[in-house]
Amino acid sequence: MGELVFVGLGLNEESDVSLKGLRKAKEADVVFAEFYTSFMSQLDLQKLEGLTEKPIHVVSRRDLEEEEGKGILDRAKKGKVVLLVPGDPFMATTHVDLRIRAEKRGIRTSIVHGASIVSAAMGLSGLQNYKFGRSVTIPFTEGGTLGATPYNVIAENQMMGLHTLCFLDIQAGEKRYMTIRDALEILTALEKQKQKRVITPSTLAVGVARAGSEKPITKADYVKQLMRFDFGKPPHSLVLPGRLHFMEAEALIMLAKAPKKIREMAT
Amino acid sequence: MGELVFVGLGLNEESDVSLKGLRKAKEADVVFAEFYTSFMSQLDLQKLEGLTEKPIHVVSRRDLEEEEGKGILDRAKKGKVVLLVPGDPFMATTHVDLRIRAEKRGIRTSIVHGASIVSAAMGLSGLQNYKFGRSVTIPFTEGGTLGATPYNVIAENQMMGLHTLCFLDIQAGEKRYMTIRDALEILTALEKQKQKRVITPSTLAVGVARAGSEKPITKADYVKQLMRFDFGKPPHSLVLPGRLHFMEAEALIMLAKAPKKIREMAT
Repeated sequence: MGELVFVGLGLNEESDVSLKGLRKAKEADVVFAEFYTSFMSQLDLQKLEGLTEKPIHVVSRRDLEEEEGKGILDRAKKGKVVLLVPGDPFMATTHVDLRIRAEKRGIRTSIVHGASIVSAAMGLSGLQNYKFGRSVTIPFTEGGTLGATPYNVIAENQMMGLHTLCFLDIQAGEKRYMTIRDALEILTALEKQKQKRVITPSTLAVGVARAGSEKPITKADYVKQLMRFDFGKPPHSLVLPGRLHFMEAEALIMLAKAPKKIREMAT
Repeated sequence: MGELVFVGLGLNEESDVSLKGLRKAKEADVVFAEFYTSFMSQLDLQKLEGLTEKPIHVVSRRDLEEEEGKGILDRAKKGKVVLLVPGDPFMATTHVDLRIRAEKRGIRTSIVHGASIVSAAMGLSGLQNYKFGRSVTIPFTEGGTLGATPYNVIAENQMMGLHTLCFLDIQAGEKRYMTIRDALEILTALEKQKQKRVITPSTLAVGVARAGSEKPITKADYVKQLMRFDFGKPPHSLVLPGRLHFMEAEALIMLAKAPKKIREMAT
């Protein structure tokens, strides 16, 4: 019986893989990897191959989505295959779909979890994880059309006093990575259309850059100021806080250099 | 200048630590660990010490909360200290508090992320992460008093069609770990009080046991059936699905052996 093991690589570089994940890759007959669902900014494929002690076959979005992972599944039908993926597997729908197709073909599947931007960005922000509402992706505007979903999700969460974690779009093929400034510009443009005062120049926001690296940056400020802040290289994420507990305000001041004035907003 | 590095150990056993996390522990002058904020069911302290090549000082809730981590901070003021924690650091408020106190004392802090139950349970359930509303902890009832927060959070999320991830209480000191059955009983008791038809015997729920281990169990079924299902040893988590996309229903059927009838609920 064949076997397909999904191994999460974590956030930033090759040494973010777990000992267990690396052992699974060493034991595998074949190792595949995909790097388009998230961006691991300091990952070096050759170094990763040095660790796994075997060649790594990088698959594309096309291989996984249009071809439905056929190459991987055909191979997994005959032996032990590892698929390395950024972050934690199954945060991307693509991986869940591939897992379902594998199980339907009688291939046993298993998982080695990795660090995910979901918990990393929540944790780095200093905000409490159980006060986050649903999260949302802010996509690049294609042909000038702005999808209103991110704005609506932030508005819904705000109404309930909840924080929103925003994942910023990645077009790995074109090496296009949305920055915090891009995201704030898109949200500001949506504000102009909707006018519900969800994102104003004086709304507090938290930018998180390069989570998982040796030099992540977490900076909280009002939108107007945050748009001018230099977060450096991608990947970036954005958090829109809801109602702040006073301990959360202290965390933003100490850990994200938020203006001390935010104490007045806290309850 | 002193340094305090928070290293996430991941979910289950010593080999869930990342290569980077292990390197940080090896480089440290002193290594502390806490094991009360989550339960790593197969972690062996001696094996972990074998990996870090130095003794690990286990700290208690009392050390971190009542004593405010003074022992760790005094040591970190003078050199490089690593604190090993289950899961991903800063998902527990205790770690955020300790980080703030360290920074206030001029101790540089940094993080090595680990796999978290937040993304692991979402991923194992097969449900889409951006459709999860806020998560909630179900606490043990103390002296028969039922806090209504979990019920209310599930109800709010349901109203919006969103899924709810429930963390189940851990009393590490007494080795008491809430099971999926305990949690469903508490929610059913709350239903009797509130009568909003949030948790009925025919409500669909998903139990996740031992995420991150070699033999995790994910099982979806109606509450009445799920209460009789044997999930085995802790730790357990529980997901209450909101509105199901048809792909999510397929995922629950294939990956969590949900009754095929749930296709009728999907949109």
